[in-house]
Amino acid sequence: MKQLLESAARICSVVLLLMGSVDARAQGAKSEAAKSPWGPADEIGTLNMMTDASKLDVLKQVAGGKIYDLGVDLFVGMPGCCTPFGAPSYQIWMTQTPARGNAQKRASLSGDGVSTYTHVGTHIDTLNHSALDKRIWNQVSADDALGARGWSKSGADKYPPIVARGVLIDVARSKNVPRLPASYSITAADLQTALKTQRTTLRPGDVILVRTGLMTLWPDPSKYRLMDQAGLSLEAARWLVEEQKAMLLGADNFGVESFPSKDPTNFAPVHTYLLAERGVSMLEVVWLEELAKDQVYEFLFIASPLKLRGATGSPVRPLAIPIRSDR
Amino acid sequence: MKQLLESAARICSVVLLLMGSVDARAQGAKSEAAKSPWGPADEIGTLNMMTDASKLDVLKQVAGGKIYDLGVDLFVGMPGCCTPFGAPSYQIWMTQTPARGNAQKRASLSGDGVSTYTHVGTHIDTLNHSALDKRIWNQVSADDALGARGWSKSGADKYPPIVARGVLIDVARSKNVPRLPASYSITAADLQTALKTQRTTLRPGDVILVRTGLMTLWPDPSKYRLMDQAGLSLEAARWLVEEQKAMLLGADNFGVESFPSKDPTNFAPVHTYLLAERGVSMLEVVWLEELAKDQVYEFLFIASPLKLRGATGSPVRPLAIPIRSDR
Amino acid sequence: MKQLLESAARICSVVLLLMGSVDARAQGAKSEAAKSPWGPADEIGTLNMMTDASKLDVLKQVAGGKIYDLGVDLFVGMPGCCTPFGAPSYQIWMTQTPARGNAQKRASLSGDGVSTYTHVGTHIDTLNHSALDKRIWNQVSADDALGARGWSKSGADKYPPIVARGVLIDVARSKNVPRLPASYSITAADLQTALKTQRTTLRPGDVILVRTGLMTLWPDPSKYRLMDQAGLSLEAARWLVEEQKAMLLGADNFGVESFPSKDPTNFAPVHTYLLAERGVSMLEVVWLEELAKDQVYEFLFIASPLKLRGATGSPVRPLAIPIRSDR
Amino acid sequence: MKQLLESAARICSVVLLLMGSVDARAQGAKSEAAKSPWGPADEIGTLNMMTDASKLDVLKQVAGGKIYDLGVDLFVGMPGCCTPFGAPSYQIWMTQTPARGNAQKRASLSGDGVSTYTHVGTHIDTLNHSALDKRIWNQVSADDALGARGWSKSGADKYPPIVARGVLIDVARSKNVPRLPASYSITAADLQTALKTQRTTLRPGDVILVRTGLMTLWPDPSKYRLMDQAGLSLEAARWLVEEQKAMLLGADNFGVESFPSKDPTNFAPVHTYLLAERGVSMLEVVWLEELAKDQVYEFLFIASPLKLRGATGSPVRPLAIPIRSDR
Repeated sequence: MKQLLESAARICSVVLLLMGSVDARAQGAKSEAAKSPWGPADEIGTLNMMTDASKLDVLKQVAGGKIYDLGVDLFVGMPGCCTPFGAPSYQIWMTQTPARGNAQKRASLSGDGVSTYTHVGTHIDTLNHSALDKRIWNQVSADDALGARGWSKSGADKYPPIVARGVLIDVARSKNVPRLPASYSITAADLQTALKTQRTTLRPGDVILVRTGLMTLWPDPSKYRLMDQAGLSLEAARWLVEEQKAMLLGADNFGVESFPSKDPTNFAPVHTYLLAERGVSMLEVVWLEELAKDQVYEFLFIASPLKLRGATGSPVRPLAIPIRSDR
Repeated sequence: MKQLLESAARICSVVLLLMGSVDARAQGAKSEAAKSPWGPADEIGTLNMMTDASKLDVLKQVAGGKIYDLGVDLFVGMPGCCTPFGAPSYQIWMTQTPARGNAQKRASLSGDGVSTYTHVGTHIDTLNHSALDKRIWNQVSADDALGARGWSKSGADKYPPIVARGVLIDVARSKNVPRLPASYSITAADLQTALKTQRTTLRPGDVILVRTGLMTLWPDPSKYRLMDQAGLSLEAARWLVEEQKAMLLGADNFGVESFPSKDPTNFAPVHTYLLAERGVSMLEVVWLEELAKDQVYEFLFIASPLKLRGATGSPVRPLAIPIRSDR
Repeated sequence: MKQLLESAARICSVVLLLMGSVDARAQGAKSEAAKSPWGPADEIGTLNMMTDASKLDVLKQVAGGKIYDLGVDLFVGMPGCCTPFGAPSYQIWMTQTPARGNAQKRASLSGDGVSTYTHVGTHIDTLNHSALDKRIWNQVSADDALGARGWSKSGADKYPPIVARGVLIDVARSKNVPRLPASYSITAADLQTALKTQRTTLRPGDVILVRTGLMTLWPDPSKYRLMDQAGLSLEAARWLVEEQKAMLLGADNFGVESFPSKDPTNFAPVHTYLLAERGVSMLEVVWLEELAKDQVYEFLFIASPLKLRGATGSPVRPLAIPIRSDR
Repeated sequence: MKQLLESAARICSVVLLLMGSVDARAQGAKSEAAKSPWGPADEIGTLNMMTDASKLDVLKQVAGGKIYDLGVDLFVGMPGCCTPFGAPSYQIWMTQTPARGNAQKRASLSGDGVSTYTHVGTHIDTLNHSALDKRIWNQVSADDALGARGWSKSGADKYPPIVARGVLIDVARSKNVPRLPASYSITAADLQTALKTQRTTLRPGDVILVRTGLMTLWPDPSKYRLMDQAGLSLEAARWLVEEQKAMLLGADNFGVESFPSKDPTNFAPVHTYLLAERGVSMLEVVWLEELAKDQVYEFLFIASPLKLRGATGSPVRPLAIPIRSDR
């Protein structure tokens, strides 16, 4: 009975989302931060599609104990999307060592400090990362919700653990290249071809991870650079979200979308579309090489963002565990 | 066949661990950083007890889709174990806002920076956190492996995702108190009583989380303070590790063990014992209140430490998913 | 001739300031961020009183080569006014050492990083530190001039080097106590008595440093604490600024003024008065013990704030060099 | 009488320094961290040449009230010598604003945090910045004096305020170029020619500032880059220190010396020579454009490094005030 209700709830989620889409379109040409179909208190957008039933469903499909680690190392000198624009670089340092000052005692503790941009290494972008006319998802205004220490809405602290069906779409492999060309914009047709090649079917609520092959350049900061990167076109993002009902979109590049933007008025239009208009969070710099090598296209996806209060993102180390395939 | 081999490997792990114990005792009274029974290249100690088979085994026992979040929020002003000793406090700040400077464009991005001690909020202590005579686990010397940017051995970057059977031992509930008295040292007998009350059995390779009830004081920095805290005695830690073959020990306090230390020559003797002598990593500031309220004592435990290269620990947001109980 | 013109300019400065005062009073009871008498482009307030002639005048009076250092050491664990309110604590760490990694070469470099609140140790408060109704000095609005990386107006980068006649008013000595009582509010009469005792005369444009004796508690963070500190009353600040035409006010405590504030609607009313209403910058945590011991009450005062773009203050290490006394 | 003694002390300083030089040469070819001629407790090297008499002497020569500001602005995105090598970039951010959270009160305070490499903007290199065989000036060993939070010897906290005769040597002007060619190594003959052109004489104890003209590229991080920069050759540094008895050497480039180094075994041989072998501190990224434009070659030089405990350098904003010229 409980499962039945949860399934119903899940279906309703999707219907509501669909209504939201229609509603947004009815607003006409001018894009703006959208109202959430999950109500005025919503801060997490499509992550509301998860239910206990949906989680149990995918947990039960686990087909093996090999765990794929989708996170990269964090280290001094690593590529950073935004250091050229003034974002702090990743830093780690010792605060305490067994050396001088501890010498008189045999036992000692070492400690360290870290300073970083929240969008570092493999990370999630939360919905407050993008604004239109100073409003984020659910039409929350910066004037009301933004302070020196972060946003009071849609911060990483509001994010639930993410446990869902994950799908890898290996576009690079489908095109038979080690990586997509510089600044290439992936089309919906590219995604469809890759899915057909892989024999993978998408389902509403999926975490969809797109492989550009750019991790073959990692971690060389002179090669793995934001402004050169292939990624999703806006049209492809729309297809995934509006037609396929994706819950979460990720990729193995810095910004999911391709750079530079083709829209001179918007540095990152897919960000705006996903985060501010659709309530779809994003996963960036995802390590997909092992999944790709083993041709694991369907998996239990688990990510547990740090609850950094007010933050616009969080480093995360997602896991993928193969499930019984549709194929 | 493969499963059989993996089971064998797991049993061997335990045997090797046991041999290590005996070996360490044979060294006599003087404690020192131990050689790893997993060989000279080992950097993760008892986490070697995990195998694909052990992970699949517990994944298959999942009994529901409700996920318990064992991590706390991270925010400015939160309690910190070590700020009184000079460790950096947790800081977050905006690096980019929709305000001034972005005004000419409708679309904008917000970003933020974080600066923190690695031992912040719910976190793991890695084996390089503790040294004896400047040597960490596996007798690695600071002279060889410690630089300004961290340890080259046993850092958080070397840690695998942790997927194992987890057990909550609710000592506060067993004693029928909201929380243990200030600086109370939990004995092995306390643990045994609590386990009996709960009707829970420990198994080799478990992640064991001990509840002192101190989270009832969280997040008041004037009450949730290192030097007042109840925690494990060395004797209790020994019982869990040597008799019960725990893989990982955690608690809802700052340091797993009780403070202040009873050993004037060692600020944190249980740390030294677990990390440097036994290769057992530690989980601290774990949020156990929901598990305790629902009396969930056995669960699939999942934690995915950030791979902060060289770090002595990492913030983590562990998950617990109920499994079919032994009871 | 040039000197004559500069003297005239200096006198005009004072007249303008006086007019500003009158103007401000005419505005009636409601305090607000003031318009600058130095025009709409002004960002430094009373520091405009300095001219080449005024600087040469005091430079020529130097009476010896002994230099008094008015700055304190900056170190991990030092007292901080605002860490209890979430401000970052002072941190320093090595980024590079001669150790591991440099071993193959004989020559090596050491480097370090610092992270700090700008109001740390001996420091200057710039005019953008205080706002009334979101407006700072010269009625500059936060909406126009405040971004994630600081204020575009009145930041430390706009500050000239400060070279002027300095005067020490040793209130503690005048009252014959090592330090003033907790939270004591110094009155104008207290200042007048001390000046008489010292036989010191104030002049327009002076840098006035008030000694409470609190540095006798430095650097014990449990004793040198903001909320306990003696300092100026609003009435005394008014007398120094409006009657005596002080250019810059400093003290040996955290906030120049006494804490806690007597005004429940304003945490720091003397800050508001000096910075937002009068354009008078402030010097805090000034080391006055050597000057006091040697009874040096008049001196060449030199301070050179770091030009931290947009900052609301800057650490500074001021110098005092005795000049020929009026006495 | 007192002045006589101080003059004598000053002469002795120079004699001792000279003896030190001879002594160092007698050690033969192998360079090593030198013993200080000022005794085993010395941490500041040639800054010992300053006396009250030497300071008064130059203070008395002041010839005008115009003050030259030799410091650059510090801001996000500024050129940094060492960010390509992993040093932290300069960061500033708001910790407190008049916005959200302060809205209920009319009066508010703004605050900010700064995080930086100590060698940022215009700064001093202290003697612990450079080591030979892990030993700094006065043969202090890293094993004895280096901890996670800095060096216990020769840190910026040990530095006195610097008040001395300053001299600008405008090599770029002497060669009639806006700036010296990329990586050009200035010779002693270049310095001699420039001094003759300027009609300036050096004296023992001078602060010598060498102008390469590189500030004409400031603050473009793509042009003002360490590895391209002109600067002193080792031979020129030797001439200034050993023949001319310079107290402090500075320049308008990142490292005083030219880069890249011609010595494959030493990244920065002039650093090693000055800091570790001669006890001569260094000033870098000094703004000399105004002095050069006004052809001010002799001046009272004032610098007051922040007393960052243990640091290998400190940002500083030096001042120059013209004195009566020798010409």
